[in-house]
Amino acid sequence: MAVMERRKFIGSAGLAGILATGLAPAAHANQAIRWRLVSSFPKSLDITHGGALVFAREVKEMSGGKIDISVHAAEDLMPAFSVLDGVQRGVVECAHTASHYFIAKDESFALDCAVPFGLNARQMNAWMRHGNGLALLREFFKGYGIVNFPLGNTGAQMGGWYRKPVRSLADIKGQKMRIAHLGGVVLQRIGGVPVSLPGGDIYKALERGEIAAAEWIGPHDDLKLGLHKLCKYYAYPSWWEGSTQLSLYVNQRAYESLTAENKAIIETAAAASHLDMQAQYDARNPAALKDLVATGTQLMPLPRTVLDAAYQAAQDLYAELAGRNPNWRKIHGSYAAFLKDQAWAWGHAEMGFDGYMHRRALQQSKPAPAKKSPLAPRR
Amino acid sequence: MAVMERRKFIGSAGLAGILATGLAPAAHANQAIRWRLVSSFPKSLDITHGGALVFAREVKEMSGGKIDISVHAAEDLMPAFSVLDGVQRGVVECAHTASHYFIAKDESFALDCAVPFGLNARQMNAWMRHGNGLALLREFFKGYGIVNFPLGNTGAQMGGWYRKPVRSLADIKGQKMRIAHLGGVVLQRIGGVPVSLPGGDIYKALERGEIAAAEWIGPHDDLKLGLHKLCKYYAYPSWWEGSTQLSLYVNQRAYESLTAENKAIIETAAAASHLDMQAQYDARNPAALKDLVATGTQLMPLPRTVLDAAYQAAQDLYAELAGRNPNWRKIHGSYAAFLKDQAWAWGHAEMGFDGYMHRRALQQSKPAPAKKSPLAPRR
Repeated sequence: MAVMERRKFIGSAGLAGILATGLAPAAHANQAIRWRLVSSFPKSLDITHGGALVFAREVKEMSGGKIDISVHAAEDLMPAFSVLDGVQRGVVECAHTASHYFIAKDESFALDCAVPFGLNARQMNAWMRHGNGLALLREFFKGYGIVNFPLGNTGAQMGGWYRKPVRSLADIKGQKMRIAHLGGVVLQRIGGVPVSLPGGDIYKALERGEIAAAEWIGPHDDLKLGLHKLCKYYAYPSWWEGSTQLSLYVNQRAYESLTAENKAIIETAAAASHLDMQAQYDARNPAALKDLVATGTQLMPLPRTVLDAAYQAAQDLYAELAGRNPNWRKIHGSYAAFLKDQAWAWGHAEMGFDGYMHRRALQQSKPAPAKKSPLAPRR
Repeated sequence: MAVMERRKFIGSAGLAGILATGLAPAAHANQAIRWRLVSSFPKSLDITHGGALVFAREVKEMSGGKIDISVHAAEDLMPAFSVLDGVQRGVVECAHTASHYFIAKDESFALDCAVPFGLNARQMNAWMRHGNGLALLREFFKGYGIVNFPLGNTGAQMGGWYRKPVRSLADIKGQKMRIAHLGGVVLQRIGGVPVSLPGGDIYKALERGEIAAAEWIGPHDDLKLGLHKLCKYYAYPSWWEGSTQLSLYVNQRAYESLTAENKAIIETAAAASHLDMQAQYDARNPAALKDLVATGTQLMPLPRTVLDAAYQAAQDLYAELAGRNPNWRKIHGSYAAFLKDQAWAWGHAEMGFDGYMHRRALQQSKPAPAKKSPLAPRR
């Protein structure tokens, strides 16, 4: 997933109006609290945008209506990529976003979201909650006056849509692909040509031949963009987003003004909404993938040569970043050590079970036409 | 995971005392609520038992101390397997348990927990929250006067400890193995000899040669039992527990006596604790698996012939259950349809990503000695 809407359009309220309103005053224990949450996501990303709605609903219910958080879709109160500044400056109390949008400020933001060849969704939860992840990222976000909470994950994304099959690294070289963030940096290093485009512009750019490939999210969201009408090949996996964590940003002063009880409500609601978003993506993606295959989409494992080249380029990038960015060095040091043990251990109970069940599904079920099975990942 | 302590020992309070206390009276909005939660787990299962502690702490924090749930380990207030009756009869307000303990009452309980060749942990969350799982199970539990909530998962478990290598189905035939629940039923159908034993008795039974194999949970919990001192081979995956969901049972009258606000606090805290337990297992298991390998434990993929035989026996069992148990037919019908699409779809982005990362870990990291890599699952 990547760049949403680049338009710097300010919605009905107008920036002056937003600024004039400012942060809600510190509330006393029994006083009503009204917060505004700005999302980086449009309503059309129903599950991602919906995560903030689930969060706000849970907070309202648990507080007996005393904490009322209004949720504003991208571009409603402020542009999708202004939400970090908005929360930092206290223009709004909180935001729901994908931290890798902000790697131009510091690449370390990506470690709160997704990095190429990173942790899968459960491993990310493990690092955040019971590794050192959340503690390190809280320290990092403190520099922005923000308290961060994980709020959702998409799981492993798909590896993009291609007009032509990708059989080797040569097929990537010189190819214009809509891809952003660290994935774009790595793609460029292996010869690809990353192009930044908001989601709504991808279809036209493919249609006009301005790009030959594009990544978006996964089956549920991709189906809605209609890219399968232009591209026959749907690749997997997304080596750049083995999982993508979304985040709740809360202005630190606003958070500290809360009672211990209300802080616990925010934290627990974020965790429950985090669980819920992943569950919803997992529930919806298979049906969408079946629909895509039924319309003739061909599922295409990315070739080993491409993965190997990208993997090496990513490791080189991380070494460079560690050399020049102390935040990255510290946080990625913890992340990479955690990942090493996880990726090794995952290959036994989890992969052994999933692998067997998948082979059984290929043998027995009809959702995937039999001709698709040779395209299953080489194992 | 399976049977804990079979001793029908009643702890210090005594059953008469518990019964005399009964359910806490219905509370008004601002009145303190004191509940007792009985766990089926001993404190030694620190992560599983700890899930109830995390839940109780979150509830207490979010309610500003107004809801105080005391957590009682297995055998403290009542035996591990009496908790269903205890909650149903209103002896206590709630329990934390593994629903497959109660399949003697109705096999459908297993569908709230684990069935052989079932959903993995994320798929289970998806079915529960955004498939029809929770709705169907709530209807089922209503018959017991209980409102159920998922509260924790172990992830895919390991496939047990064996004194001798398992190379084919012949090595299973006639072998006494400590295994319980539907896994035990299926093992018996493929020629094994399931033996029920509480966790604390497994070591001695293996030492005395009364059993030749035993399954428990996964690396973190198994390491503590010390079975690696008696068994060289640690198999994977557990075809009987591709994930194991734990549950919070709340007495229906007690739940209905709560305000909408307090109901939301119970529900959201259960979801957040559910996320947290899986994250903790995922964070701790790799280190324990490394430790086991370092002491000479050999990781052993179960052979395809064993998995195939067990898979077929499980499907036959499910068909029989559907024929004679309407609850099973209804709930498993939804579960099986959901699983079919999940197992197919999982083989693309998720398995593609995990598989690549695991191969990289085998090539590059040292935690697993190189001689172990041939034992990785055949893919």
